[in-house]
Amino acid sequence: MSYVAPLKDMLFAITELAGIDRLSGLPGCEDATSDTARAVLEEAARLHEDVLAPLNIDGDRNPSAWQDGVVTATPGFKDAFRQFAEGGWQGLQHPSGYGGQDLPKLLSTPCIEMLNAANLSLGLCPLLTDGAIEALLTAGSEEQKQRYVPKLISGEWTGTMNLTEPQAGSDLALVRTRAEPQADGSFKLFGTKIFITWGEHDMATNIAHLVLARTPSAPEGVKGISLFLVPKFLVNEDGSLGERNDVHCVSIEHKLGIKASPTAVLQFGDHGGAIGYLVGEENHGLEYMFIMMNAARFAVGVQGVAISDRAYQHAVAYAKERVQSRPVNGSAKQSVAIIQHPDVRRMLSTMRALTEGARALAYVAASHCDFAHRHPDEATRARHQAIYEYLVPIVKGWSTEMSLEVTSLGVQVHGGMGFIEETGAAQYYRDARILPIYEGTTAIQANDLVGRKTARDGGEVAALLLAQIDATLAEIEAHASYRSSAAFQAMYRHLSSGRDALNSAVRFVVEHVRRDPNAVFAGSVHYLTLAGIVLAGWQLARSLVLAADKRDEDLAFYDAKIATAHSYATQLLPRALALEASIRDARDGEGVLALREDQF
Amino acid sequence: MSYVAPLKDMLFAITELAGIDRLSGLPGCEDATSDTARAVLEEAARLHEDVLAPLNIDGDRNPSAWQDGVVTATPGFKDAFRQFAEGGWQGLQHPSGYGGQDLPKLLSTPCIEMLNAANLSLGLCPLLTDGAIEALLTAGSEEQKQRYVPKLISGEWTGTMNLTEPQAGSDLALVRTRAEPQADGSFKLFGTKIFITWGEHDMATNIAHLVLARTPSAPEGVKGISLFLVPKFLVNEDGSLGERNDVHCVSIEHKLGIKASPTAVLQFGDHGGAIGYLVGEENHGLEYMFIMMNAARFAVGVQGVAISDRAYQHAVAYAKERVQSRPVNGSAKQSVAIIQHPDVRRMLSTMRALTEGARALAYVAASHCDFAHRHPDEATRARHQAIYEYLVPIVKGWSTEMSLEVTSLGVQVHGGMGFIEETGAAQYYRDARILPIYEGTTAIQANDLVGRKTARDGGEVAALLLAQIDATLAEIEAHASYRSSAAFQAMYRHLSSGRDALNSAVRFVVEHVRRDPNAVFAGSVHYLTLAGIVLAGWQLARSLVLAADKRDEDLAFYDAKIATAHSYATQLLPRALALEASIRDARDGEGVLALREDQF
Repeated sequence: MSYVAPLKDMLFAITELAGIDRLSGLPGCEDATSDTARAVLEEAARLHEDVLAPLNIDGDRNPSAWQDGVVTATPGFKDAFRQFAEGGWQGLQHPSGYGGQDLPKLLSTPCIEMLNAANLSLGLCPLLTDGAIEALLTAGSEEQKQRYVPKLISGEWTGTMNLTEPQAGSDLALVRTRAEPQADGSFKLFGTKIFITWGEHDMATNIAHLVLARTPSAPEGVKGISLFLVPKFLVNEDGSLGERNDVHCVSIEHKLGIKASPTAVLQFGDHGGAIGYLVGEENHGLEYMFIMMNAARFAVGVQGVAISDRAYQHAVAYAKERVQSRPVNGSAKQSVAIIQHPDVRRMLSTMRALTEGARALAYVAASHCDFAHRHPDEATRARHQAIYEYLVPIVKGWSTEMSLEVTSLGVQVHGGMGFIEETGAAQYYRDARILPIYEGTTAIQANDLVGRKTARDGGEVAALLLAQIDATLAEIEAHASYRSSAAFQAMYRHLSSGRDALNSAVRFVVEHVRRDPNAVFAGSVHYLTLAGIVLAGWQLARSLVLAADKRDEDLAFYDAKIATAHSYATQLLPRALALEASIRDARDGEGVLALREDQF
Repeated sequence: MSYVAPLKDMLFAITELAGIDRLSGLPGCEDATSDTARAVLEEAARLHEDVLAPLNIDGDRNPSAWQDGVVTATPGFKDAFRQFAEGGWQGLQHPSGYGGQDLPKLLSTPCIEMLNAANLSLGLCPLLTDGAIEALLTAGSEEQKQRYVPKLISGEWTGTMNLTEPQAGSDLALVRTRAEPQADGSFKLFGTKIFITWGEHDMATNIAHLVLARTPSAPEGVKGISLFLVPKFLVNEDGSLGERNDVHCVSIEHKLGIKASPTAVLQFGDHGGAIGYLVGEENHGLEYMFIMMNAARFAVGVQGVAISDRAYQHAVAYAKERVQSRPVNGSAKQSVAIIQHPDVRRMLSTMRALTEGARALAYVAASHCDFAHRHPDEATRARHQAIYEYLVPIVKGWSTEMSLEVTSLGVQVHGGMGFIEETGAAQYYRDARILPIYEGTTAIQANDLVGRKTARDGGEVAALLLAQIDATLAEIEAHASYRSSAAFQAMYRHLSSGRDALNSAVRFVVEHVRRDPNAVFAGSVHYLTLAGIVLAGWQLARSLVLAADKRDEDLAFYDAKIATAHSYATQLLPRALALEASIRDARDGEGVLALREDQF
């Protein structure tokens, strides 16, 4: 099943919802216009549709393979990655001074979506390299930047993030990898890192591992973690490759999905010590790692959108082709394509509405990030940064959980064929399952949303967003279409309830987090889900108004936008009611925490 | 990870919720007492825990294999199935006249749960054999019964159901397999059947295929389908095996899960015609097949409970062992077992509450089936039969959809380890995915619930159940614990809302199904889900009252029951609100059907 990048939907989200034209007024963004967007996306679509997408199923059938420490990527991947790199796609969002394109996040985001929809396993390699680039640009020395970043941007080398150890998953305080200082200012690293995505492979000539480790004098816990750069091959003064470093891949995992992406166990220092270079200041590793993590978390959220869209496209194609049973309303005497059956339509509408809602939310978040980095006014920058940071755990947590539902519906639409691997729908179901886990599980995202993003400012940013929802509600109610349009009325009704539910949840979090943290954190995933449902619904409410206004320009396209928003309003926004009721009833930790540890 | 049959929970459901003692007053059920139940379940637990459960992961790693038409089961399966058969477990619910044990469904159901929790792939073989036995007992000739049923019950032979063809999945009107009458009264069959579970294997000496096909004179559509018995080896007069019949397995599927269970493509008549015998009357095949299907559907619902329990046990064990991060409420300075973290607790509580609720509903349904078959009073039998039939699509549809959520949470509790196949959690996630598909997808169940089970009697049976919920609500409100117990109050509040939501959905279905079938059928899965959530919640409400009354007899056990009901009330019952809102808003098919076919 081929993938077709939804260019029109993407451009609608970029132009109408995220308002790219407001971006182009910012310094350095003069070129960020709808026309640029179209040109970039069309170019990206060609590569991803033609080269990367067809390899997706190959990667599942013929995963990356390990032998004697060497990992060979699925046949075709090396060449596809070379084309990706040569096209400049790795450098999209990185500074032109290092060979990048310096495009705003609002334009790199749809490209990242395409990459991951085309090939999630392959897409992980550039995703991790982006993280390594950002860490080096933020905290690396000038020499490190000059020596590594251009090679990473050109795709000659790739990057990794080495956080997890067998005993240290979500809890980085438990990291044990040691870094011993050497006379020349470098370090020797000793330890085992697990779950290292693309930690070893043959698609690039070198790999820059960014590794969390402890120096001998480091304090206990997360305050004693430093960040090190450990290249697979040492790099000579002139930039050429030197000796093989003492970091070796001792195995790769046998996984449920994303099988083409090698998940490595890396052994550092088994043969005398892996040479590493401190990045930034000692004991500040976690801080830098969070910079990488935050970018990566956003990108993983986009992966959720991406795989949902791929699963949706696959399911729609099958539902239009598969003929089975007569219509329930007796409108035909013959069997019809299953897309005509109401429940199949419900499933496809749900898949589509969730995907479009999550996409809109991610793109709008990306534009806040761009304003936060480029707006001349400091207060404006700060406001956008705060909104972006509030949205990141939602984009990561909600869009990935949402992708489980969408890929599962994708299997269901296929009936028995969905369970047969050759059909392809099952691969999305398996691949997606990692998304709510890596780069911080949904609970970790929810804790971040509750703690750093809601409780810390007393719900101030949340209130800002709620006020924007109110403005959209007012716009809907005042709109000329309101009286005659069932979609407008349904959206007004359900978004109002959703808004109230979100407000109530925010109040609950702010008021109870100190005196009853267990109750609040027991409802934290519900809160994140509720925020996702309502904020994505709000984006589709905005899309509804915009589509109604522009309807005459392109009836088919805008009517589908109106219908998608209508479907989201009636089928998805009501979930806010249930979530809010569960959060509210967690008061004193009763109910959800009623079962004690020993009762399980 | 080993499986431990939850004997105490099962006995609670059998004795307290489904009221086995009322059954033992019925003719033929004199032995159906709590003591018998305990004895049977303990015996079953030994076999399933020790023999079948350890093979579950082997079946995934080393699936059934096809070569040259011969299918070899996973090593160990043949011997395990022999032990199962020799223990008499295949005959549990079948008549003693044919070698069965004649136990009520209320006692066979927990055994079926254990079998499928221990080994879902292996469990499918007896499940399909049960269907074949029921079809033959219902419609077979005396000779067919005598010749086949004892061998099927003893496990020397197994049975299959052959419905699906490449063009005929849910829509059996499209069946094309031909049956040509022969001079001796037998038929020759020609055609291809797909998705035939355990359609070929080496665990038994013969396989009795029950096959839907058309005779030359048959009318079009489902009214022209007959049922045939096509043995793999012909059976001589004396019961010994004769010639190999012309039915051959040309391939088995490469599936997402239940890999040890061979899913066969069977070719009938490629070498002159497969000899088959008409079962019952010509053109009545669908009717008989529905008898098999209904039993199988119930059993598949129990599979949903089974795999959920297995996934729950696996997740609890990991959560108690895995140490990671300090508690959010600052109650410890050290990292703790993750079961102490509120969101892990929420996930485990949700898994447990859903599993217990679904189990209770299935067991109560089983007891209605027993009353329907054995009560001396005809009107009473009819009432129980109607309730049982209302519950079957819910047990099938809801418990299996529920198992997707539970097995997904099971992966999530494991974090990154959940994505690694060796951990085992991913297998449940993959295995469960077939459950809402085979034996009729959730949409098919929902259509049955809407059409035959709700609209046809104007919601009468649903009203009967709603009245019983009202009685439970009154009991809760009048209970001595009501004032002091948060669990009682939460259950009263949320079950009341749930009851109203279910009532509203039933009214909507009854009032709109004729004039706006698309709207009703677009909401049919929501209605089924709502009914599942509320009816399972009602069972846990009954369990709450019973537990409060018996608390002093076993504090640890009954307090856990109270806590589980409390958790269900606050975390799961609120979903009824969202579902009802979505159903109500489907009026005129707007919203959910807003997107036209060409807009996808």
